Amino acid sequence: MINPFFKNHGPFTISEILKSLKLDIDNLDKDKAITDIKDLLSSTEENLTFFHSKKYKHIAKKTKASFCLTTEPLKNELPLSCKAIIVENVLLSLSKITCIFYPDSIDDNFDETIIPIDETKFNEKVIFGKNVLIGANVSIGINSKIGHNSIIEKNVVIGDNCTIGSNNVIRNTLIKDNVKILDNCVIGKHGFGFFPSKNKNIRYPHIGIVLIEDNCEIGCGATIDRGSMSNTIIGKNSYLDNQIHIAHNVKIGENSIIAGQVGIAGSSIIGNNVKIGGQAGISGHLKIGNNVEIGGGSGVIRDIPDNTKVMGYPAKNIREFLRDNKWFTKQL
Amino acid sequence: MINPFFKNHGPFTISEILKSLKLDIDNLDKDKAITDIKDLLSSTEENLTFFHSKKYKHIAKKTKASFCLTTEPLKNELPLSCKAIIVENVLLSLSKITCIFYPDSIDDNFDETIIPIDETKFNEKVIFGKNVLIGANVSIGINSKIGHNSIIEKNVVIGDNCTIGSNNVIRNTLIKDNVKILDNCVIGKHGFGFFPSKNKNIRYPHIGIVLIEDNCEIGCGATIDRGSMSNTIIGKNSYLDNQIHIAHNVKIGENSIIAGQVGIAGSSIIGNNVKIGGQAGISGHLKIGNNVEIGGGSGVIRDIPDNTKVMGYPAKNIREFLRDNKWFTKQL
Amino acid sequence: MINPFFKNHGPFTISEILKSLKLDIDNLDKDKAITDIKDLLSSTEENLTFFHSKKYKHIAKKTKASFCLTTEPLKNELPLSCKAIIVENVLLSLSKITCIFYPDSIDDNFDETIIPIDETKFNEKVIFGKNVLIGANVSIGINSKIGHNSIIEKNVVIGDNCTIGSNNVIRNTLIKDNVKILDNCVIGKHGFGFFPSKNKNIRYPHIGIVLIEDNCEIGCGATIDRGSMSNTIIGKNSYLDNQIHIAHNVKIGENSIIAGQVGIAGSSIIGNNVKIGGQAGISGHLKIGNNVEIGGGSGVIRDIPDNTKVMGYPAKNIREFLRDNKWFTKQL
Repeated sequence: MINPFFKNHGPFTISEILKSLKLDIDNLDKDKAITDIKDLLSSTEENLTFFHSKKYKHIAKKTKASFCLTTEPLKNELPLSCKAIIVENVLLSLSKITCIFYPDSIDDNFDETIIPIDETKFNEKVIFGKNVLIGANVSIGINSKIGHNSIIEKNVVIGDNCTIGSNNVIRNTLIKDNVKILDNCVIGKHGFGFFPSKNKNIRYPHIGIVLIEDNCEIGCGATIDRGSMSNTIIGKNSYLDNQIHIAHNVKIGENSIIAGQVGIAGSSIIGNNVKIGGQAGISGHLKIGNNVEIGGGSGVIRDIPDNTKVMGYPAKNIREFLRDNKWFTKQL
Repeated sequence: MINPFFKNHGPFTISEILKSLKLDIDNLDKDKAITDIKDLLSSTEENLTFFHSKKYKHIAKKTKASFCLTTEPLKNELPLSCKAIIVENVLLSLSKITCIFYPDSIDDNFDETIIPIDETKFNEKVIFGKNVLIGANVSIGINSKIGHNSIIEKNVVIGDNCTIGSNNVIRNTLIKDNVKILDNCVIGKHGFGFFPSKNKNIRYPHIGIVLIEDNCEIGCGATIDRGSMSNTIIGKNSYLDNQIHIAHNVKIGENSIIAGQVGIAGSSIIGNNVKIGGQAGISGHLKIGNNVEIGGGSGVIRDIPDNTKVMGYPAKNIREFLRDNKWFTKQL
Repeated sequence: MINPFFKNHGPFTISEILKSLKLDIDNLDKDKAITDIKDLLSSTEENLTFFHSKKYKHIAKKTKASFCLTTEPLKNELPLSCKAIIVENVLLSLSKITCIFYPDSIDDNFDETIIPIDETKFNEKVIFGKNVLIGANVSIGINSKIGHNSIIEKNVVIGDNCTIGSNNVIRNTLIKDNVKILDNCVIGKHGFGFFPSKNKNIRYPHIGIVLIEDNCEIGCGATIDRGSMSNTIIGKNSYLDNQIHIAHNVKIGENSIIAGQVGIAGSSIIGNNVKIGGQAGISGHLKIGNNVEIGGGSGVIRDIPDNTKVMGYPAKNIREFLRDNKWFTKQL
């Protein structure tokens, strides 16, 4: 389950789906009901999937979906059981259809369902500060605290023994037990994902959530965006310092330590026991192994294998970095 | 019009102006009324202007101002119609006089005129969250929304179909239509401009505004400072990710895309269709052309012509950057 | 006095202290009362001290403490008057004992003692905005202002003529006169200091404060953490731009100017009249001299002597930086 929160407004028929794309394609069972839109791997016979890049052709061959948004050059990779719906731009079409299934996942306007916490069932159960606001579909465990002016918007689960500081805005987020979130954070808003378009960009839906595992600490001023088609995850017992930006779909492993002002771009995956120095940046769609150490200020632009220390911009093995900067020790 | 907001307390006579600078200069028409203080180009006969650097001598020759703050070596560049007022430090003197004309532009203390939105005329017109505060001289268009705890201080215009998130502080800002501002932003405060001085720095006035054009999106935690003698501008349909800092007088073109944690220093001008990767920094007073792409983590310290891709610190052409880091692909 | 705020719950006997460490050591005066835990230098005969690294052996020889947490290899450096308490991990043991003396210094949960300012004695004395909250043990000087939604938590002293903006969270902080703090800052929270441990890291106490001297300005979105065993200090008339992160124990001198998005890691000491360009980062435990200039985007990883200009990552003398990047001026 990617998201326990956004309501699926399906099923929709193929006919309705084609109409939303302004397409008219023959030889398709237009009355077929599609229950959801999923990736190649997790689709079932009742789902629509999408296939936009050659690099997924091995997975494409095995998809169980009955229909697939794709392009002319890619369609032959699909199994016979999966009918191609040829579109110009797969991701843009995907975005349009996701909006039909999950209309609530596009906009992140402020939550109008919110009410003061002392008018909710949490009044007696939770220790809370002044002006705390609670949205619909929120659950809070025992012995948890919520600080002043914090806004727990709709679709939030907070576990036991958590402490949420002041001035936070949280939505679409699942927080496990013993988690500490300091002040002025924004967690669970949509990521920076859209189709650039002259005059008016088109936002794509973000149906993922933010998942913060047990014993984590999130510093002041963090922004952690929820995932688009998967979740953003902070693994167990990982600690984040102040002013950190975690983009959508990022997954951070367990026992990791991330210093101040670090930024991790969308869809990168960070291993367990990783240490990242202050102000380091990690580009999108990278894989950082377990037990990796990244020096402060580094700019990581490629995958890093397990047990490696890197530093620099672009980040390289620490031995190379020190060798290249040997002269540097001579004079200032 | 630089600023529709700050009240001009003029006119002042040359006599009053000299007095504020503790100067006594002969041969000047001391009863002449000065209506405003403007730059060399936009001054009229009733204005005082300033001329502090040789590089403006071509413009200085053509100024229509009757009086000009300048230095002994520069004064001969002025036309006969413009009388020089010789001062030791032109910008410091300019600052002092601007304070007389626009006393409200120095301090950015919290707005004491503010009242809860449900006590204003916006009560029925605007969709708003809890604890929203509205200052004097605010206008809000139709179908706009303002989130919880947001503070719309004095001198703000918000257009139609805008959505302002929660925990924002906005002042001296003109927001056009269909603009989206997420949470925890501070927009329209004075920039980081002052005259360093032992024991007590001297702030100079910021009489510009922040102008955010149609269809823009501003991410969480942004700080966008208003201009000093000109405006800070975010062009149409430009999207800014989280934790971005835009300093005073910066102008960003249309359809630009700026990723998380980018910082742009004072007075730099960014073209149209520019893409800036995460954590990149752009020094002050630079000109970045149209269709430029700046890699994540770059440090830009010189002008960049149109249609160029750059990366690195200092940022260089992407071809150079990749060549210089070729070895880098060998091992980690 | 490191901290005027945290209540010392001592004295405790050696017996109680050993028990908290689960140690049983013979030949110690177990009824001896220990009044406080201090560093080697400032300890008196009634204190317990700690000694964890060879580099402090010259100071260790002179300590006046009666007892010292240390290791087998180091114990012989102590004077006869000081009895060694041998532990496996000195800092972890120190942390445990500090928790006993100063239990309030571990957690930074939101302040439950807080009440609206109009229910306090400051109602008539201070100019304040909407929803201002004040904790226990707060003092505010004359002619100071506090903006909307700001939370002045327990243990804060604000001097005369200060202006605090909106949406700030401040605790354990001593602010002198004429200080200006803009909006959305978090000042005085504990630093990013803990003992990493599988499954559940162990936080160590932060008993220091943040001290902001006269005439400083702190920009929007700053995070300034309080010290652990010493204070975090911003020297007189230093100005910080927006989105700056100052870690625990950092000391910044007088008349320094720090541009936007700079980060300074824990325990670094910055001199007087230092200028730091935007987005520069300074590693922990460094000493930056007086009159140093650090270029924007630099990554400083070693000490810098007085009167030096540096730039680059790693930051080097500006002459070297310009020479190394000479080719750079040729083409973009």
